[in-house]
Amino acid sequence: MANDSHAQLSHPNIVDGWFRETATMWPGQAFSLEVQQILHHEKSKYQDVLVFESKSYGNVLVLDGVVQATERDEFAYQEMITHLPMNSHPEPKKVLVIGGGDGGVLREVVKHSSVEEVTLCEIDEAVIRVSKKYLPGMAVGFEHPKVNIHIGDGFPFLADRANTFDVIITDSSDPIGPAESLYQPGYYELMYKALRPDGMICTQGECQWLHLPLIKNVLSFSARVYPSVGYAYTTIPSYPSGQIGFIICSKAADRDLAEPLRQWSVEEEADLCRYYNAQIHRAAFVLPQFAKSAVQEALKSAQADTADAATENPADGKA
Amino acid sequence: MANDSHAQLSHPNIVDGWFRETATMWPGQAFSLEVQQILHHEKSKYQDVLVFESKSYGNVLVLDGVVQATERDEFAYQEMITHLPMNSHPEPKKVLVIGGGDGGVLREVVKHSSVEEVTLCEIDEAVIRVSKKYLPGMAVGFEHPKVNIHIGDGFPFLADRANTFDVIITDSSDPIGPAESLYQPGYYELMYKALRPDGMICTQGECQWLHLPLIKNVLSFSARVYPSVGYAYTTIPSYPSGQIGFIICSKAADRDLAEPLRQWSVEEEADLCRYYNAQIHRAAFVLPQFAKSAVQEALKSAQADTADAATENPADGKA
Repeated sequence: MANDSHAQLSHPNIVDGWFRETATMWPGQAFSLEVQQILHHEKSKYQDVLVFESKSYGNVLVLDGVVQATERDEFAYQEMITHLPMNSHPEPKKVLVIGGGDGGVLREVVKHSSVEEVTLCEIDEAVIRVSKKYLPGMAVGFEHPKVNIHIGDGFPFLADRANTFDVIITDSSDPIGPAESLYQPGYYELMYKALRPDGMICTQGECQWLHLPLIKNVLSFSARVYPSVGYAYTTIPSYPSGQIGFIICSKAADRDLAEPLRQWSVEEEADLCRYYNAQIHRAAFVLPQFAKSAVQEALKSAQADTADAATENPADGKA
Repeated sequence: MANDSHAQLSHPNIVDGWFRETATMWPGQAFSLEVQQILHHEKSKYQDVLVFESKSYGNVLVLDGVVQATERDEFAYQEMITHLPMNSHPEPKKVLVIGGGDGGVLREVVKHSSVEEVTLCEIDEAVIRVSKKYLPGMAVGFEHPKVNIHIGDGFPFLADRANTFDVIITDSSDPIGPAESLYQPGYYELMYKALRPDGMICTQGECQWLHLPLIKNVLSFSARVYPSVGYAYTTIPSYPSGQIGFIICSKAADRDLAEPLRQWSVEEEADLCRYYNAQIHRAAFVLPQFAKSAVQEALKSAQADTADAATENPADGKA
């Protein structure tokens, strides 16, 4: 259970004053951060929850041994997973965040004045509780009057809310552990039904340097559900290999997701953002040659399959 | 001295089967790679030289404890430091590489058919020797008939060659150790004199997430020497924080360095490159908000100073 008497805390990933992140999803490589003090450690109902103060990255939230957010670089992830879909939607009013228990995505969503209501659905109350205590710069997102919190599983929550949201952001951990089902076709179909027309989704989409087969798989089944699908990425030093990607889909056909439908002025960008701007939005979709080929291949093959299925079943009205 | 009896080799950075990179230039963080076997270790005249076979990144070259290249991701760095300046020059014929003793930049330079001659000036013969033995995919660059090798210090080499090169690429280690003088104004002035009209330089320019003050400093003094100056970056998992930048300068005025003057066809790009393409060239100059502001500030202040100096000394012909 929760234990906040700092002097007595220990964690199997912290040895000789350094936290070390290793995982089967990135074999043979490890990122380490020097620890000032352990602030919190508990086994929640769903996962191992650790918060420590680092020497050079501020406070750090770790779930099941994997860094989720550091105060030094979290803004890159939170801004990109939020503003890429939000600025690709003509007028997002109702927004849903699945996961995101640190509050950082909420903080970004409410920067868009069109938003009337944003709901966060987080399965693990422990993440919200420790973020409010140790990550106030992110948890500030919980304090906004437009924000509602729901503690629970995203699947039944989505199933009860057809045709409800303009944007759904899935700020989840990796597909090993509680977030595994969020990387399956069933989840993408549920989100599709919960979206209004023109709705957008954006999900944590893993790293092109580490997980191209997984990315290709998610893109393939997404493209069978959504007419417009893309992969973009952000740099972020504390994530494995220094970056992370996003799967971005729109219910609208032929939408160029790399071109923001709405833009802030240069002054607003400087005021509101530390990472995102309209140029970065476009550049985030530009992939290195090796990833570009893989992504194009996955999307083309899914489109061909969808066209074939439509030809075989002209009654679907797609032929 | 050199010792290749693998079973007996050890290195202070390798403990319990993992190589761990720590350095004063990125305090409080460390990247580690799992070691299959140590292939080579020596103290050369200039630095500590280590080559090991890793579990998941192929063979790895380490100088003074810092990863220089891994077989898995080196192409990102080599392609970007080479093709960014090469494709920004109208017709590069004579090319100089300072450093780059692994041969990877040479491999990329000779992909440009306009090149008549490329010279590599590397201070440490040990880097070339071990790369030929353990990094054949990079050292293949040494075998091309257009390539000349010079073992020695870049400063006197440049000083003897005024108005000689179309492109100078500085593929160096960090500014602590033998490469320190390569981050000083005197070096940028020497390169300027060694360039022909329209000449371009590209140097290893450190990471925007870690070294913005250093980057701003180099940009400031570069902009006092070169009329066109920019900062671009590549992602690369095995470098600190997962990316590294480049300082790119042209002797030509008002050159938009982000727009390649020459482009390969899409088929040539797929054939020649694993990271670089024309879109990535443009996107590499698009910086996150925090770095964009810092770079713009450094360049504007340098331009203002240059304009002031010209006004005070109209005899310079710049007023």
